[in-house]
Amino acid sequence: MRIVVLAGGIGGARFLRGLKAAAPEADITVIGNTGDDIHLFGLKVCPDLDTVMYTLGGGIHEEQGWGRADETFTVKEELAAYGVGPEWFGLGDRDFATHIVRTQMIGAGYPLSAVTEALCARWQPGVRLLPMSDDRVETHVLVEADGERKAVHFQEYWVRLRASVPAQAVVPVGAEAAKPAPGVLEAIAAADVIVFPPSNPVVSIGTILAVPGIREAIAEAGVPVVGLSPIIGDAPVRGMADKVLAAVGVESSAAAVATHYGSGLLDGWLVDTVDADAVAGVEAAGIRCRAVPLLMSDLDTTTRMAREALDLAEEVRA
Amino acid sequence: MRIVVLAGGIGGARFLRGLKAAAPEADITVIGNTGDDIHLFGLKVCPDLDTVMYTLGGGIHEEQGWGRADETFTVKEELAAYGVGPEWFGLGDRDFATHIVRTQMIGAGYPLSAVTEALCARWQPGVRLLPMSDDRVETHVLVEADGERKAVHFQEYWVRLRASVPAQAVVPVGAEAAKPAPGVLEAIAAADVIVFPPSNPVVSIGTILAVPGIREAIAEAGVPVVGLSPIIGDAPVRGMADKVLAAVGVESSAAAVATHYGSGLLDGWLVDTVDADAVAGVEAAGIRCRAVPLLMSDLDTTTRMAREALDLAEEVRA
Repeated sequence: MRIVVLAGGIGGARFLRGLKAAAPEADITVIGNTGDDIHLFGLKVCPDLDTVMYTLGGGIHEEQGWGRADETFTVKEELAAYGVGPEWFGLGDRDFATHIVRTQMIGAGYPLSAVTEALCARWQPGVRLLPMSDDRVETHVLVEADGERKAVHFQEYWVRLRASVPAQAVVPVGAEAAKPAPGVLEAIAAADVIVFPPSNPVVSIGTILAVPGIREAIAEAGVPVVGLSPIIGDAPVRGMADKVLAAVGVESSAAAVATHYGSGLLDGWLVDTVDADAVAGVEAAGIRCRAVPLLMSDLDTTTRMAREALDLAEEVRA
Repeated sequence: MRIVVLAGGIGGARFLRGLKAAAPEADITVIGNTGDDIHLFGLKVCPDLDTVMYTLGGGIHEEQGWGRADETFTVKEELAAYGVGPEWFGLGDRDFATHIVRTQMIGAGYPLSAVTEALCARWQPGVRLLPMSDDRVETHVLVEADGERKAVHFQEYWVRLRASVPAQAVVPVGAEAAKPAPGVLEAIAAADVIVFPPSNPVVSIGTILAVPGIREAIAEAGVPVVGLSPIIGDAPVRGMADKVLAAVGVESSAAAVATHYGSGLLDGWLVDTVDADAVAGVEAAGIRCRAVPLLMSDLDTTTRMAREALDLAEEVRA
């Protein structure tokens, strides 16, 4: 079975661990969000790709969900001693090596997809990890701060501001001109199932869908497209998805996210058991819906979630 | 008193510490060798400039003579885990931060001289540290290995090969087209004394002199130019200066190095007391010469050496 998964960072990565356990024989291609990539200290940092790679490769800081286990911060401290920031972005020494290799390869002319493949040769994530695009796309968030409207990089909004000011708009800068990375459209066309994990529907999956051609390819793939709600009981499971949902005019609820994707794209949707009363509404919108436990508290529960998603896909197909 | 010093790495840096102690009121400008600069992992590394900066700024690994004190090697280990080398060059985590800042600033368009000034704002070396040039100059060594002649980067010859194969030629690639960095010629023209510390006469001071305009400016400055022999008793005090002296057809002796510089450039020369019998020959070549202890075993002995050099300069001037 060929499964294509659109993934952001922590939520997508943890779900993928469950999916690998639920479908150990499957051929899984992950299309990773690169809209939150950022250049720091002259280095190209790809937080979402790295979170997937480290999580599936056994290098992730488990409690934190991002960054490397057993991390140290010598380089960052030294950069601060030079007065060079930002200090709000937590790059550790082990992590720095990844960004140094990536930046060196990009400087030598390799596209991000080739670099990602090279990095994965070490981590052996057990999936094929593709960036959504080799072209630079940068998610900016329009906020009002100090009485003026300004656009800040998504990481600045998310990490430095902790989404504490309202997001007025979310703009994937460069997306219109971006092309899907080599292999992305081919993987979608060859997929048996397409899955939207409980990643952020705006700044993760939404950004991937903003790359021209990807949304269309999914809609036209003719295979079940199933998703898992990142919202449980009207609040995001983790992160601050509600903040950016507001910016795109979508209510923070499991049902609203499903109809935001829409029945033109989505065939099946899993909501948590606490949101069982949303099932009827989602189904009325033309999307098959089931209520199952959606908290990824450990590998077992996550594996069960992935199995439910695959079961729902088969139900849709049949 | 305005003193200009041409410096390589360890020898030059240690001498400078003595010079600062010997002439605490002096205005010292250091023209640093950049011929052994190397790009590693996509980062610009300037070993000689950094050795001077760390030594005078209190950050040097004292026993080793290069690199940072209390160093760790996490980034390097991680790069090796990605299969990215070279492994023979010992970049530590603290050191990496320096190269990251430098590379970022150069990428943003700053010349190396401005970058060096910015890095020194942290280290406060107590001297004005200028790279010999903002242009890229790279010392290559012609060697015969595996039956074929090839040119290797100086660092590869020095650090990886440990100068174990004969150097047939030393070529400062790019030197002819390089321009002295801003401030270099001005500092030489304004100097009261110019000093050649016991740095490598070929790959350190020789490379600086290979930048068009610097040798001429020193010869025409009309002020005493005094040097200290890096060779004691026919062997280099440290390093492998004898290997590269052979490549330029110069005998490894205190007297031969003096005549290699020549009386057109050098007015005074200090040899070690064990080389006292070389004094007459050097003086016969038109260079004032004295035999004094030249082992930089601690700050006191180094300070005395610096004082002897300044005394010799005054003797030449009178």
